[in-house]
Amino acid sequence: MESTKISIFCPATIANLSCGFDVLGMALEGIGDRMNVSLTQEKGVQITRITGGDLPMEAEKNVAGVAALALLDAAHYQGGVAIEIEKNILPGSGIGSSAASAAGAVWAINKLLGDPFTPLQLVGFASLGEALASGSPHADNVAPALYGGITLIRSYDPLDIAKVHCPPLLHAALLHPQIELKTSDSRSILKRTISLEKGIRQWGNVGGLITGLFTEDYGLISRSLEDRIIEPLRSLLIPGFDDLRQAALKAGALGFGISGSGPSVFALTTGPEVALNTEKSLINCYQSLGIPFKTYTSAINHRGVRLWNYQTDSVK
Amino acid sequence: MESTKISIFCPATIANLSCGFDVLGMALEGIGDRMNVSLTQEKGVQITRITGGDLPMEAEKNVAGVAALALLDAAHYQGGVAIEIEKNILPGSGIGSSAASAAGAVWAINKLLGDPFTPLQLVGFASLGEALASGSPHADNVAPALYGGITLIRSYDPLDIAKVHCPPLLHAALLHPQIELKTSDSRSILKRTISLEKGIRQWGNVGGLITGLFTEDYGLISRSLEDRIIEPLRSLLIPGFDDLRQAALKAGALGFGISGSGPSVFALTTGPEVALNTEKSLINCYQSLGIPFKTYTSAINHRGVRLWNYQTDSVK
Repeated sequence: MESTKISIFCPATIANLSCGFDVLGMALEGIGDRMNVSLTQEKGVQITRITGGDLPMEAEKNVAGVAALALLDAAHYQGGVAIEIEKNILPGSGIGSSAASAAGAVWAINKLLGDPFTPLQLVGFASLGEALASGSPHADNVAPALYGGITLIRSYDPLDIAKVHCPPLLHAALLHPQIELKTSDSRSILKRTISLEKGIRQWGNVGGLITGLFTEDYGLISRSLEDRIIEPLRSLLIPGFDDLRQAALKAGALGFGISGSGPSVFALTTGPEVALNTEKSLINCYQSLGIPFKTYTSAINHRGVRLWNYQTDSVK
Repeated sequence: MESTKISIFCPATIANLSCGFDVLGMALEGIGDRMNVSLTQEKGVQITRITGGDLPMEAEKNVAGVAALALLDAAHYQGGVAIEIEKNILPGSGIGSSAASAAGAVWAINKLLGDPFTPLQLVGFASLGEALASGSPHADNVAPALYGGITLIRSYDPLDIAKVHCPPLLHAALLHPQIELKTSDSRSILKRTISLEKGIRQWGNVGGLITGLFTEDYGLISRSLEDRIIEPLRSLLIPGFDDLRQAALKAGALGFGISGSGPSVFALTTGPEVALNTEKSLINCYQSLGIPFKTYTSAINHRGVRLWNYQTDSVK
């Protein structure tokens, strides 16, 4: 018999994009995990290797494992899968580390099984992995990881996802302050009610951002990258946030905000050069704080999780 | 010397479009006022004739007058204007009656003065007229009346307006229950705070509607025409609202909601035939209630206020 091993790239993602709390997300080209996935005769999910992160090996406690189990269960698959994870996206960084693992696992298994599920269904399975990581099955990282580009979650119940046009010049610069900030803590700082006035401003900005993306109006995109609801609370947990924003905007970035629930922050730019300038400014700004950090620049990933290679071995 | 009189069409408009409270609006092709405007040597604004509505003739108490005065003041114009208004949009109907007058006045005067102001500035002047009618300078009717098509107010402070793509098949059916419902009353029924959860749903829907409009995805448009914040409160003031919704959706409409602050209700459809079917269903549904009503169907107006004719007379 034959055994097929699939090797994939799983992109990092920026959720929220300032105004689009819980609904918008964007996939990155330059940062991502690598996973190897193969079908096994043994039932269940075995996580056989994890490098680059101290994560649980038991399938039921691992986001990739939980997502994979949900898919296998829905597929009534009699065998199982073996998963190797090479983490490059640091867990807890706020750029979709758990989402990359969950999205990668379901994308690869779906591929190996002959694509029985739609991308929308894959987001559903992957969200169950996300629920393990953060306590709620949010999809604003797994959706862009699977669809690529910029995605909108119109509704969670029922799950309804649309792809938003992504202008070709768009790039991102990111800074990851290496402080611990759990998604569940970042959520508990939020207030359960907002003023109608702030709500109107937020849906005006979501509308403006999406209109700007479709019409490639970078000025409108820039003006719409504003969040008066979540950011004022969450930014309190990120040292130097206001200075970083000023540095990014001074370097020519279109906008600046918190990536997902943080602690990473992101800036969007027109083109790679402004992204590199912005990265430099973020570095200059943060060096004096004494907090270890990493920075990245990246183009936008338009395809989502993608194949690196197939390996088919004869098994005796 | 010469005196130029300009005759214009001022479209009715549907504000909010369900999810887009205070930010979205759409102009209609089939319903609108007519106005005649001419420059005068005498300073100030004279409203010389109003037909079709019992509205104040004093400029300072008339929405068109207030808007016109704001523009003339900003232009430092030494003369004045004379305005005749032929109302076809019933005041208090919820389809932008006051906005049509305010938008028409500023559009015509701007034309007569040689276009010194941008459309954005015209919206600002017209909003001051709207403030007289409703107590707040909202722009979600005047913006589509001036820009045409579907407009988004990203922000009120500073005023920031974007045009959203409008798929060619889109049509509207409307029913106007002839009950009195003041904009100020419709606003006072609203709550000042909303749950974050409902906010997320609303900006997801605004994002979905705009994405659906740009991609001409009528299914997405239909699913996004939802409002769980304003409509549940305001619909209490409109007799038969739930039955009308069911009638519209059964007739094949994409969605159904309150036009602006009501009492008119609207349905969006793909094409004129479904709009006519929807109108019939709305009529059938409402006939038993014993409330007088009017109905309309309309294509979308893509140009906003427009010229009917110029008349230039020699004045002795």
